[in-house]
Amino acid sequence: MLVNRLTKKSSNSIRIGITGVPGVGKSTFIEALGKHLTLQGHKIGVLAIDPSSHKTKGSILGDKTRMESLSQNPNVFIRPTPSAGTLGGVAKTTRESITLLEAAGYDIILVETVGVGQSEISVSAMVDFFLLLMIPGAGDELQGIKRGIMEMADGIVINKAEGEMEKKAMLAKRQLENALHLFPLPENGQTPRVMLCSALQNKAIDKVWKGIEQHLSKNKKSGYFDHRRKSQSVYWFKEAVKHELETHFFSNAHVKENWKKFETEVSNDIKSPFAAAKEIINKVK
Amino acid sequence: MLVNRLTKKSSNSIRIGITGVPGVGKSTFIEALGKHLTLQGHKIGVLAIDPSSHKTKGSILGDKTRMESLSQNPNVFIRPTPSAGTLGGVAKTTRESITLLEAAGYDIILVETVGVGQSEISVSAMVDFFLLLMIPGAGDELQGIKRGIMEMADGIVINKAEGEMEKKAMLAKRQLENALHLFPLPENGQTPRVMLCSALQNKAIDKVWKGIEQHLSKNKKSGYFDHRRKSQSVYWFKEAVKHELETHFFSNAHVKENWKKFETEVSNDIKSPFAAAKEIINKVK
Repeated sequence: MLVNRLTKKSSNSIRIGITGVPGVGKSTFIEALGKHLTLQGHKIGVLAIDPSSHKTKGSILGDKTRMESLSQNPNVFIRPTPSAGTLGGVAKTTRESITLLEAAGYDIILVETVGVGQSEISVSAMVDFFLLLMIPGAGDELQGIKRGIMEMADGIVINKAEGEMEKKAMLAKRQLENALHLFPLPENGQTPRVMLCSALQNKAIDKVWKGIEQHLSKNKKSGYFDHRRKSQSVYWFKEAVKHELETHFFSNAHVKENWKKFETEVSNDIKSPFAAAKEIINKVK
Repeated sequence: MLVNRLTKKSSNSIRIGITGVPGVGKSTFIEALGKHLTLQGHKIGVLAIDPSSHKTKGSILGDKTRMESLSQNPNVFIRPTPSAGTLGGVAKTTRESITLLEAAGYDIILVETVGVGQSEISVSAMVDFFLLLMIPGAGDELQGIKRGIMEMADGIVINKAEGEMEKKAMLAKRQLENALHLFPLPENGQTPRVMLCSALQNKAIDKVWKGIEQHLSKNKKSGYFDHRRKSQSVYWFKEAVKHELETHFFSNAHVKENWKKFETEVSNDIKSPFAAAKEIINKVK
Protein backbone atom coordinates (compact mmCIF):
# COMPACT_ATOMS: atom_id res chain seq x y z
CA MET A 1 0.00 0.00 0.00
CA LEU A 2 1.39 3.36 -1.04
CA VAL A 3 0.74 5.16 2.23
CA ASN A 4 2.66 2.47 4.06
CA ARG A 5 5.84 3.10 2.10
CA LEU A 6 5.70 6.85 2.60
CA THR A 7 6.11 7.22 6.33
CA LYS A 8 9.70 8.34 6.57
CA LYS A 9 9.59 11.89 5.24
CA SER A 10 7.52 13.44 8.04
CA SER A 11 10.31 14.43 10.39
CA ASN A 12 10.34 18.12 9.53
CA SER A 13 6.64 18.63 9.21
CA ILE A 14 4.39 20.41 11.66
CA ARG A 15 0.81 19.31 12.25
CA ILE A 16 -1.61 21.86 13.71
CA GLY A 17 -5.18 21.11 14.79
CA ILE A 18 -7.59 24.03 14.81
CA THR A 19 -10.92 23.93 16.60
CA GLY A 20 -13.58 26.42 17.63
CA VAL A 21 -17.34 26.78 17.50
CA PRO A 22 -18.98 28.06 14.32
CA GLY A 23 -18.67 31.82 14.10
CA VAL A 24 -15.21 32.26 15.58
CA GLY A 25 -13.76 32.73 12.11
CA LYS A 26 -11.89 29.49 11.51
CA SER A 27 -11.89 29.83 7.71
CA THR A 28 -10.68 33.42 7.85
CA PHE A 29 -8.00 32.44 10.35
CA ILE A 30 -6.78 29.54 8.22
CA GLU A 31 -6.81 31.79 5.17
CA ALA A 32 -4.66 34.38 6.98
CA LEU A 33 -2.32 31.86 8.59
CA GLY A 34 -1.96 29.91 5.34
CA LYS A 35 -1.07 33.08 3.44
CA HIS A 36 1.52 34.03 6.06
CA LEU A 37 3.08 30.57 5.88
CA THR A 38 3.19 30.29 2.09
CA LEU A 39 4.90 33.69 1.93
CA GLN A 40 7.59 32.17 4.13
CA GLY A 41 8.07 29.40 1.58
CA HIS A 42 6.02 26.66 3.22
CA LYS A 43 3.75 24.22 1.44
CA ILE A 44 0.43 23.92 3.28
CA GLY A 45 -2.05 21.08 3.50
CA VAL A 46 -5.51 21.87 4.85
CA LEU A 47 -7.73 18.98 5.99
CA ALA A 48 -10.94 18.87 7.96
CA ILE A 49 -12.88 16.55 10.22
CA ASP A 50 -16.45 17.61 10.67
CA PRO A 51 -18.87 15.04 11.99
CA SER A 52 -21.81 17.33 11.28
CA SER A 53 -20.93 17.82 7.64
CA HIS A 54 -23.26 15.16 6.27
CA LYS A 55 -26.09 16.82 8.11
CA THR A 56 -25.32 20.41 7.17
CA LYS A 57 -23.86 19.41 3.81
CA GLY A 58 -20.42 20.72 4.55
CA SER A 59 -20.41 23.40 7.18
CA ILE A 60 -16.63 23.59 7.17
CA LEU A 61 -14.36 23.59 4.18
CA GLY A 62 -17.21 22.23 2.12
CA ASP A 63 -17.20 25.41 0.15
CA LYS A 64 -13.74 26.24 -1.12
CA THR A 65 -14.78 29.81 -1.85
CA ARG A 66 -14.61 30.45 1.88
CA MET A 67 -10.84 30.32 1.51
CA GLU A 68 -10.65 32.10 -1.79
CA SER A 69 -7.05 33.15 -2.13
CA LEU A 70 -5.73 30.10 -0.31
CA SER A 71 -7.51 27.64 -2.57
CA GLN A 72 -5.93 29.24 -5.64
CA ASN A 73 -2.39 29.07 -4.26
CA PRO A 74 -0.37 26.28 -5.95
CA ASN A 75 1.50 25.65 -2.69
CA VAL A 76 -1.71 24.86 -0.84
CA PHE A 77 -3.67 21.63 -0.91
CA ILE A 78 -7.20 21.85 0.50
CA ARG A 79 -9.32 18.77 1.00
CA PRO A 80 -12.91 19.37 2.12
CA THR A 81 -14.49 17.07 4.68
CA PRO A 82 -15.39 13.74 3.14
CA SER A 83 -19.15 13.90 2.88
CA ALA A 84 -19.83 10.38 4.06
CA GLY A 85 -18.58 7.83 6.53
CA THR A 86 -18.31 7.31 10.25
CA LEU A 87 -16.08 9.45 12.42
CA GLY A 88 -13.68 6.51 12.70
CA GLY A 89 -13.49 6.24 8.93
CA VAL A 90 -13.06 9.98 8.38
CA ALA A 91 -10.37 10.13 11.07
CA LYS A 92 -8.51 7.26 9.44
CA THR A 93 -8.63 8.93 6.02
CA THR A 94 -7.44 12.21 7.52
CA ARG A 95 -4.58 10.54 9.38
CA GLU A 96 -3.52 8.85 6.13
CA SER A 97 -3.84 12.08 4.17
CA ILE A 98 -1.37 13.72 6.54
CA THR A 99 1.19 11.04 5.70
CA LEU A 100 0.56 11.42 1.97
CA LEU A 101 0.80 15.20 2.05
CA GLU A 102 4.02 15.13 4.04
CA ALA A 103 5.52 12.63 1.62
CA ALA A 104 4.56 14.99 -1.19
CA GLY A 105 6.52 17.81 0.44
CA TYR A 106 3.78 19.67 2.30
CA ASP A 107 5.54 20.68 5.50
CA ILE A 108 2.73 22.30 7.48
CA ILE A 109 -0.58 20.50 7.85
CA LEU A 110 -3.63 22.24 9.28
CA VAL A 111 -6.50 20.04 10.45
CA GLU A 112 -9.74 21.89 11.07
CA THR A 113 -12.60 20.70 13.25
CA VAL A 114 -15.67 22.09 15.00
CA GLY A 115 -15.40 22.12 18.78
CA VAL A 116 -18.78 20.64 19.47
CA GLY A 117 -18.47 16.93 18.83
CA GLN A 118 -16.41 13.83 19.28
CA SER A 119 -13.92 14.62 16.55
CA GLU A 120 -11.64 16.77 18.72
CA ILE A 121 -10.15 13.76 20.45
CA SER A 122 -9.29 12.32 17.05
CA VAL A 123 -7.78 15.56 15.83
CA SER A 124 -5.77 16.23 18.99
CA ALA A 125 -4.39 12.70 18.63
CA MET A 126 -2.99 13.42 15.17
CA VAL A 127 -1.41 16.86 15.61
CA ASP A 128 1.64 18.37 17.29
CA PHE A 129 -0.23 21.44 18.46
CA PHE A 130 -3.96 21.68 19.17
CA LEU A 131 -5.24 25.23 18.87
CA LEU A 132 -8.54 26.47 20.26
CA LEU A 133 -9.92 29.50 18.45
CA MET A 134 -12.24 31.81 20.38
CA ILE A 135 -13.79 35.26 20.18
CA PRO A 136 -14.02 37.94 22.89
CA GLY A 137 -17.15 38.04 25.05
CA ALA A 138 -16.92 38.38 28.80
CA GLY A 139 -17.20 35.01 30.43
CA ASP A 140 -19.41 33.19 28.03
CA GLU A 141 -16.90 32.54 25.29
CA LEU A 142 -16.93 28.83 25.79
CA GLN A 143 -20.58 28.07 26.22
CA GLY A 144 -20.83 26.56 22.78
CA ILE A 145 -17.78 24.39 23.07
CA LYS A 146 -17.79 20.88 24.47
CA ARG A 147 -16.43 20.20 27.92
CA GLY A 148 -13.00 18.68 27.88
CA ILE A 149 -11.80 20.48 24.78
CA MET A 150 -10.40 23.40 26.76
CA GLU A 151 -8.07 21.04 28.59
CA MET A 152 -6.92 19.45 25.34
CA ALA A 153 -5.65 22.74 23.92
CA ASP A 154 -1.93 23.47 23.58
CA GLY A 155 -2.79 27.10 22.93
CA ILE A 156 -5.76 29.44 22.67
CA VAL A 157 -6.12 32.21 20.10
CA ILE A 158 -8.70 34.92 20.64
CA ASN A 159 -9.67 36.04 17.17
CA LYS A 160 -11.51 39.24 16.17
CA ALA A 161 -9.34 41.32 18.51
CA GLU A 162 -10.12 44.38 16.41
CA GLY A 163 -11.77 47.79 16.81
CA GLU A 164 -14.15 47.91 19.74
CA MET A 165 -13.59 44.23 20.47
CA GLU A 166 -9.90 44.70 21.23
CA LYS A 167 -10.44 45.74 24.84
CA LYS A 168 -12.80 42.83 25.45
CA ALA A 169 -10.27 40.48 23.86
CA MET A 170 -7.52 41.65 26.19
CA LEU A 171 -9.79 41.14 29.19
CA ALA A 172 -10.74 37.66 27.99
CA LYS A 173 -7.04 36.87 27.57
CA ARG A 174 -6.26 37.82 31.17
CA GLN A 175 -9.25 35.88 32.52
CA LEU A 176 -8.32 32.80 30.57
CA GLU A 177 -4.68 32.99 31.64
CA ASN A 178 -5.76 33.16 35.27
CA ALA A 179 -8.14 30.25 34.82
CA LEU A 180 -5.60 28.11 32.99
CA HIS A 181 -3.13 28.54 35.83
CA LEU A 182 -5.65 26.93 38.16
CA PHE A 183 -5.87 23.90 35.94
CA PRO A 184 -3.56 20.91 35.73
CA LEU A 185 -0.50 21.29 33.52
CA PRO A 186 -0.42 19.34 30.27
CA GLU A 187 1.95 16.40 29.91
CA ASN A 188 4.73 18.54 28.44
CA GLY A 189 4.66 20.94 31.37
CA GLN A 190 3.84 24.02 29.30
CA THR A 191 0.79 26.04 30.33
CA PRO A 192 -1.21 26.73 27.15
CA ARG A 193 -0.47 30.24 25.95
CA VAL A 194 -3.30 32.62 25.14
CA MET A 195 -2.77 34.82 22.09
CA LEU A 196 -4.72 37.57 20.34
CA CYS A 197 -5.18 38.25 16.64
CA SER A 198 -7.49 39.61 14.01
CA ALA A 199 -7.59 37.24 11.06
CA LEU A 200 -9.88 39.60 9.15
CA GLN A 201 -7.44 42.52 9.46
CA ASN A 202 -4.44 40.20 9.17
CA LYS A 203 -3.20 41.47 12.54
CA ALA A 204 -0.79 39.54 14.78
CA ILE A 205 -1.00 36.38 12.67
CA ASP A 206 2.81 36.40 12.63
CA LYS A 207 2.86 36.59 16.43
CA VAL A 208 0.50 33.66 16.74
CA TRP A 209 2.75 31.60 14.49
CA LYS A 210 5.83 32.65 16.48
CA GLY A 211 4.06 31.50 19.63
CA ILE A 212 3.29 28.12 18.10
CA GLU A 213 6.87 27.76 16.87
CA GLN A 214 8.30 28.61 20.28
CA HIS A 215 6.00 26.10 21.94
CA LEU A 216 6.98 23.37 19.48
CA SER A 217 10.65 24.16 19.69
CA LYS A 218 10.50 23.66 23.46
CA ASN A 219 8.68 20.38 22.86
CA LYS A 220 11.39 19.29 20.43
CA LYS A 221 14.19 20.12 22.83
CA SER A 222 12.56 18.26 25.70
CA GLY A 223 11.89 15.23 23.51
CA TYR A 224 8.14 15.60 24.05
CA PHE A 225 7.53 16.30 20.35
CA ASP A 226 8.91 12.90 19.33
CA HIS A 227 7.35 11.16 22.30
CA ARG A 228 3.92 12.55 21.38
CA ARG A 229 4.23 11.44 17.74
CA LYS A 230 5.25 7.93 18.78
CA SER A 231 2.39 7.66 21.27
CA GLN A 232 0.00 8.93 18.63
CA SER A 233 1.11 6.27 16.17
CA VAL A 234 0.58 3.56 18.78
CA TYR A 235 -2.80 5.13 19.66
CA TRP A 236 -3.93 4.92 16.04
CA PHE A 237 -2.67 1.36 15.75
CA LYS A 238 -4.77 0.36 18.76
CA GLU A 239 -7.75 2.38 17.56
CA ALA A 240 -7.56 0.74 14.14
CA VAL A 241 -7.50 -2.71 15.71
CA LYS A 242 -10.48 -1.91 17.93
CA HIS A 243 -12.33 -0.29 15.05
CA GLU A 244 -11.79 -3.40 12.94
CA LEU A 245 -12.98 -5.75 15.72
CA GLU A 246 -16.08 -3.67 16.35
CA THR A 247 -16.90 -3.26 12.68
CA HIS A 248 -16.71 -7.01 12.28
CA PHE A 249 -18.94 -7.58 15.33
CA PHE A 250 -21.54 -4.99 14.42
CA SER A 251 -21.85 -6.22 10.84
CA ASN A 252 -23.04 -9.58 12.16
CA ALA A 253 -26.69 -10.14 11.24
CA HIS A 254 -27.71 -11.33 14.69
CA VAL A 255 -26.10 -8.32 16.36
CA LYS A 256 -27.69 -5.89 13.92
CA GLU A 257 -31.09 -7.45 14.51
CA ASN A 258 -30.94 -7.50 18.31
CA TRP A 259 -28.75 -4.56 19.37
CA LYS A 260 -31.58 -2.05 19.84
CA LYS A 261 -33.65 -4.52 21.84
CA PHE A 262 -30.69 -5.15 24.16
CA GLU A 263 -30.03 -1.42 24.54
CA THR A 264 -33.62 -0.82 25.55
CA GLU A 265 -33.60 -3.67 28.05
CA VAL A 266 -30.36 -2.42 29.55
CA SER A 267 -31.44 1.19 29.81
CA ASN A 268 -34.68 0.13 31.47
CA ASP A 269 -32.86 -2.03 34.01
CA ILE A 270 -34.42 -5.24 32.70
CA LYS A 271 -30.98 -6.69 32.07
CA SER A 272 -27.66 -5.80 33.63
CA PRO A 273 -25.21 -4.32 31.10
CA PHE A 274 -22.73 -7.13 31.68
CA ALA A 275 -25.26 -9.95 31.40
CA ALA A 276 -26.57 -8.41 28.18
CA ALA A 277 -23.05 -8.15 26.76
CA LYS A 278 -22.35 -11.78 27.54
CA GLU A 279 -25.62 -12.84 25.96
CA ILE A 280 -25.20 -10.98 22.68
CA ILE A 281 -21.59 -12.08 22.33
CA ASN A 282 -22.33 -15.73 23.05
CA LYS A 283 -24.90 -15.82 20.28
CA VAL A 284 -22.35 -14.57 17.78
CA LYS A 285 -19.57 -16.98 18.67
CA MET B 1 -27.04 -14.76 37.40
CA LEU B 2 -28.01 -13.15 40.67
CA VAL B 3 -26.91 -9.64 39.83
CA ASN B 4 -29.06 -9.74 36.72
CA ARG B 5 -32.25 -10.35 38.70
CA LEU B 6 -31.55 -7.55 41.15
CA THR B 7 -31.70 -4.45 39.01
CA LYS B 8 -35.09 -3.06 39.95
CA LYS B 9 -34.53 -1.74 43.44
CA SER B 10 -32.11 1.07 42.59
CA SER B 11 -34.59 3.86 41.98
CA ASN B 12 -34.14 5.61 45.31
CA SER B 13 -30.43 5.19 45.68
CA ILE B 14 -27.80 7.86 45.25
CA ARG B 15 -24.37 7.10 43.82
CA ILE B 16 -21.54 9.51 44.59
CA GLY B 17 -18.06 9.35 43.09
CA ILE B 18 -15.26 10.93 45.10
CA THR B 19 -11.86 11.74 43.63
CA GLY B 20 -8.82 13.75 44.62
CA VAL B 21 -5.05 13.35 44.74
CA PRO B 22 -3.44 11.58 47.69
CA GLY B 23 -3.24 13.90 50.68
CA VAL B 24 -6.51 15.77 50.24
CA GLY B 25 -8.09 13.68 52.98
CA LYS B 26 -10.43 11.39 51.09
CA SER B 27 -10.62 8.76 53.85
CA THR B 28 -11.31 11.38 56.52
CA PHE B 29 -13.94 12.98 54.31
CA ILE B 30 -15.68 9.67 53.63
CA GLU B 31 -15.53 8.84 57.32
CA ALA B 32 -17.19 12.18 58.21
CA LEU B 33 -19.74 12.07 55.41
CA GLY B 34 -20.57 8.43 56.14
CA LYS B 35 -21.13 9.20 59.81
CA HIS B 36 -23.40 12.14 58.95
CA LEU B 37 -25.44 9.97 56.59
CA THR B 38 -25.81 6.96 58.89
CA LEU B 39 -27.03 9.30 61.65
CA GLN B 40 -29.77 10.33 59.23
CA GLY B 41 -30.77 6.67 58.88
CA HIS B 42 -29.04 5.85 55.63
CA LYS B 43 -27.24 2.61 54.82
CA ILE B 44 -23.91 3.34 53.17
CA GLY B 45 -21.82 1.32 50.74
CA VAL B 46 -18.22 2.36 50.21
CA LEU B 47 -16.38 1.03 47.17
CA ALA B 48 -13.09 1.98 45.57
CA ILE B 49 -11.37 1.90 42.22
CA ASP B 50 -7.68 2.48 42.44
CA PRO B 51 -5.57 1.39 39.50
CA SER B 52 -2.36 2.02 41.45
CA SER B 53 -3.34 -0.20 44.34
CA HIS B 54 -1.48 -3.29 43.17
CA LYS B 55 1.67 -1.20 42.91
CA THR B 56 1.38 0.61 46.22
CA LYS B 57 -0.34 -2.34 47.90
CA GLY B 58 -3.57 -0.54 48.61
CA SER B 59 -3.14 3.19 48.76
CA ILE B 60 -6.86 3.74 49.22
CA LEU B 61 -9.27 1.81 51.37
CA GLY B 62 -6.77 -1.01 51.51
CA ASP B 63 -6.43 -0.40 55.20
CA LYS B 64 -9.80 -0.36 56.90
CA THR B 65 -8.32 1.26 59.97
CA ARG B 66 -8.18 4.49 58.00
CA MET B 67 -11.97 4.62 58.40
CA GLU B 68 -12.11 3.34 61.92
CA SER B 69 -15.54 4.25 63.19
CA LEU B 70 -17.16 3.83 59.79
CA SER B 71 -15.88 0.29 59.33
CA GLN B 72 -17.41 -0.74 62.65
CA ASN B 73 -20.84 0.65 61.83
CA PRO B 74 -23.34 -2.15 60.97
CA ASN B 75 -25.07 0.14 58.50
CA VAL B 76 -21.91 0.57 56.48
CA PHE B 77 -20.44 -1.85 53.97
CA ILE B 78 -16.83 -1.15 52.98
CA ARG B 79 -15.11 -3.06 50.21
CA PRO B 80 -11.45 -2.29 49.66
CA THR B 81 -10.05 -2.11 46.15
CA PRO B 82 -9.71 -5.54 44.60
CA SER B 83 -5.99 -6.10 44.68
CA ALA B 84 -5.71 -7.62 41.25
CA GLY B 85 -7.15 -7.30 37.79
CA THR B 86 -7.29 -4.83 34.94
CA LEU B 87 -9.06 -1.51 35.25
CA GLY B 88 -11.81 -2.89 33.03
CA GLY B 89 -12.27 -5.84 35.33
CA VAL B 90 -12.23 -3.77 38.51
CA ALA B 91 -14.69 -1.29 37.02
CA LYS B 92 -17.03 -4.12 36.09
CA THR B 93 -16.89 -5.60 39.60
CA THR B 94 -17.52 -2.20 41.12
CA ARG B 95 -20.46 -1.50 38.82
CA GLU B 96 -21.95 -4.88 39.77
CA SER B 97 -21.30 -4.29 43.47
CA ILE B 98 -23.37 -1.10 43.28
CA THR B 99 -26.31 -3.12 41.99
CA LEU B 100 -25.88 -5.76 44.70
CA LEU B 101 -25.57 -3.20 47.51
CA GLU B 102 -28.65 -1.32 46.32
CA ALA B 103 -30.63 -4.54 46.15
CA ALA B 104 -29.52 -5.23 49.72
CA GLY B 105 -30.96 -1.92 50.87
CA TYR B 106 -27.88 0.31 50.85
CA ASP B 107 -29.27 3.60 49.60
CA ILE B 108 -26.15 5.73 49.33
CA ILE B 109 -23.10 4.38 47.52
CA LEU B 110 -19.76 6.17 47.69
CA VAL B 111 -17.16 5.20 45.09
CA GLU B 112 -13.67 6.44 45.84
CA THR B 113 -10.89 6.90 43.32
CA VAL B 114 -7.54 8.68 43.02
CA GLY B 115 -7.56 11.55 40.55
CA VAL B 116 -4.38 10.64 38.78
CA GLY B 117 -5.24 7.78 36.48
CA GLN B 118 -7.69 6.42 33.96
CA SER B 119 -10.19 5.22 36.52
CA GLU B 120 -12.03 8.55 36.85
CA ILE B 121 -13.81 8.09 33.55
CA SER B 122 -15.08 4.73 34.79
CA VAL B 123 -16.21 6.16 38.12
CA SER B 124 -17.90 9.22 36.64
CA ALA B 125 -19.77 6.84 34.33
CA MET B 126 -21.27 4.94 37.25
CA VAL B 127 -22.32 7.72 39.63
CA ASP B 128 -25.03 10.38 39.84
CA PHE B 129 -22.66 12.98 41.25
CA PHE B 130 -18.92 13.16 40.71
CA LEU B 131 -17.16 15.06 43.47
CA LEU B 132 -13.65 16.44 43.25
CA LEU B 133 -11.97 16.87 46.62
CA MET B 134 -9.23 19.48 46.91
CA ILE B 135 -7.24 21.36 49.53
CA PRO B 136 -6.48 25.09 49.72
CA GLY B 137 -3.24 26.34 48.19
CA ALA B 138 -3.19 29.41 46.01
CA GLY B 139 -3.27 28.44 42.38
CA ASP B 140 -1.49 25.14 42.44
CA GLU B 141 -4.21 22.97 43.93
CA LEU B 142 -4.68 20.95 40.82
CA GLN B 143 -1.15 20.28 39.72
CA GLY B 144 -1.33 16.68 40.83
CA ILE B 145 -4.65 15.90 39.25
CA LYS B 146 -5.03 14.68 35.71
CA ARG B 147 -6.24 17.02 33.01
CA GLY B 148 -9.85 16.48 32.11
CA ILE B 149 -10.98 15.49 35.59
CA MET B 150 -11.83 19.06 36.55
CA GLU B 151 -14.35 19.21 33.74
CA MET B 152 -15.92 15.91 34.76
CA ALA B 153 -16.80 17.15 38.24
CA ASP B 154 -20.40 17.89 39.26
CA GLY B 155 -19.07 19.64 42.34
CA ILE B 156 -15.82 20.56 44.06
CA VAL B 157 -15.24 20.38 47.80
CA ILE B 158 -12.27 22.19 49.30
CA ASN B 159 -11.36 20.18 52.37
CA LYS B 160 -9.16 21.26 55.28
CA ALA B 161 -10.87 24.67 55.45
CA GLU B 162 -9.80 24.97 59.07
CA GLY B 163 -7.64 27.24 61.21
CA GLU B 164 -5.11 29.20 59.24
CA MET B 165 -6.13 27.42 56.05
CA GLU B 166 -9.66 28.83 56.13
CA LYS B 167 -8.75 32.12 54.46
CA LYS B 168 -6.81 30.35 51.76
CA ALA B 169 -9.73 27.99 51.23
CA MET B 170 -12.14 30.88 50.73
CA LEU B 171 -9.78 32.47 48.22
CA ALA B 172 -9.42 29.18 46.37
CA LYS B 173 -13.21 28.86 46.29
CA ARG B 174 -13.61 32.28 44.66
CA GLN B 175 -10.85 31.61 42.15
CA LEU B 176 -12.34 28.27 41.19
CA GLU B 177 -15.83 29.70 40.85
CA ASN B 178 -14.51 32.38 38.51
CA ALA B 179 -12.59 29.82 36.50
CA LEU B 180 -15.53 27.43 36.27
CA HIS B 181 -17.73 30.17 34.87
CA LEU B 182 -15.33 30.55 31.98
CA PHE B 183 -15.66 26.88 31.15
CA PRO B 184 -18.38 25.12 29.20
CA LEU B 185 -21.49 24.13 31.14
CA PRO B 186 -22.03 20.43 31.84
CA GLU B 187 -24.81 18.57 30.05
CA ASN B 188 -27.36 19.26 32.77
CA GLY B 189 -26.77 23.00 32.63
CA GLN B 190 -25.65 23.33 36.26
CA THR B 191 -22.29 24.99 36.88
CA PRO B 192 -20.40 22.78 39.34
CA ARG B 193 -20.72 24.26 42.83
CA VAL B 194 -17.65 24.83 44.96
CA MET B 195 -18.07 24.03 48.67
CA LEU B 196 -15.86 24.26 51.76
CA CYS B 197 -15.52 21.86 54.66
CA SER B 198 -13.21 20.44 57.27
CA ALA B 199 -13.62 16.69 57.45
CA LEU B 200 -11.15 16.48 60.33
CA GLN B 201 -13.13 18.94 62.47
CA ASN B 202 -16.44 17.64 61.11
CA LYS B 203 -17.28 21.16 59.92
CA ALA B 204 -19.80 21.92 57.16
CA ILE B 205 -20.17 18.26 56.16
CA ASP B 206 -23.93 18.78 56.46
CA LYS B 207 -23.72 21.75 54.09
CA VAL B 208 -21.78 19.74 51.55
CA TRP B 209 -24.45 17.04 51.65
CA LYS B 210 -27.21 19.65 51.29
CA GLY B 211 -25.41 21.00 48.24
CA ILE B 212 -25.23 17.56 46.69
CA GLU B 213 -28.89 16.91 47.45
CA GLN B 214 -29.98 20.21 45.93
CA HIS B 215 -27.96 19.49 42.83
CA LEU B 216 -29.47 16.02 42.46
CA SER B 217 -32.97 17.20 43.15
CA LYS B 218 -32.66 19.66 40.26
CA ASN B 219 -31.37 16.83 38.10
CA LYS B 220 -34.34 14.68 39.06
CA LYS B 221 -36.83 17.44 38.26
CA SER B 222 -35.30 18.11 34.86
CA GLY B 223 -35.22 14.42 34.01
CA TYR B 224 -31.43 14.53 33.71
CA PHE B 225 -30.95 12.13 36.63
CA ASP B 226 -32.83 9.35 34.86
CA HIS B 227 -31.37 10.23 31.51
CA ARG B 228 -27.85 9.96 32.95
CA ARG B 229 -28.51 6.57 34.52
CA LYS B 230 -29.96 5.19 31.30
CA SER B 231 -27.02 6.49 29.26
CA GLN B 232 -24.65 5.00 31.81
CA SER B 233 -26.27 1.58 31.51
CA VAL B 234 -25.95 1.70 27.74
CA TYR B 235 -22.36 2.93 28.12
CA TRP B 236 -21.49 -0.09 30.30
CA PHE B 237 -23.24 -2.43 27.90
CA LYS B 238 -21.11 -1.13 25.02
CA GLU B 239 -17.96 -1.11 27.15
CA ALA B 240 -18.59 -4.71 28.20
CA VAL B 241 -19.03 -5.78 24.58
CA LYS B 242 -15.83 -4.00 23.53
CA HIS B 243 -13.97 -5.36 26.54
CA GLU B 244 -15.05 -8.88 25.64
CA LEU B 245 -14.04 -8.49 21.98
CA GLU B 246 -10.64 -7.09 22.93
CA THR B 247 -10.00 -9.71 25.61
CA HIS B 248 -10.74 -12.41 23.08
CA PHE B 249 -8.43 -10.81 20.49
CA PHE B 250 -5.55 -10.17 22.87
CA SER B 251 -5.64 -13.68 24.28
CA ASN B 252 -4.84 -15.03 20.82
CA ALA B 253 -1.36 -16.58 20.77
CA HIS B 254 -0.30 -14.92 17.55
CA VAL B 255 -1.37 -11.48 18.79
CA LYS B 256 0.39 -11.96 22.12
CA GLU B 257 3.55 -12.99 20.34
CA ASN B 258 3.64 -10.16 17.80
CA TRP B 259 1.96 -7.15 19.44
CA LYS B 260 5.13 -5.56 20.83
CA LYS B 261 6.96 -5.94 17.52
CA PHE B 262 4.07 -4.22 15.72
CA GLU B 263 3.98 -1.43 18.29
CA THR B 264 7.68 -0.78 17.85
CA GLU B 265 7.40 -0.77 14.06
CA VAL B 266 4.46 1.62 14.22
CA SER B 267 6.04 4.02 16.70
CA ASN B 268 9.22 4.11 14.58
CA ASP B 269 7.27 4.88 11.40
CA ILE B 270 8.28 1.59 9.78
CA LYS B 271 4.64 0.66 9.32
CA SER B 272 1.57 2.87 9.18
CA PRO B 273 -0.80 2.27 12.10
CA PHE B 274 -3.61 1.22 9.78
CA ALA B 275 -1.52 -1.17 7.69
CA ALA B 276 -0.20 -2.77 10.88
CA ALA B 277 -3.72 -3.17 12.25
CA LYS B 278 -4.87 -4.84 9.06
CA GLU B 279 -1.87 -7.16 9.09
CA ILE B 280 -2.24 -8.36 12.67
CA ILE B 281 -5.99 -8.84 12.33
CA ASN B 282 -5.72 -10.77 9.07
CA LYS B 283 -3.37 -13.25 10.67
CA VAL B 284 -5.87 -13.96 13.43
CA LYS B 285 -8.87 -14.46 11.19
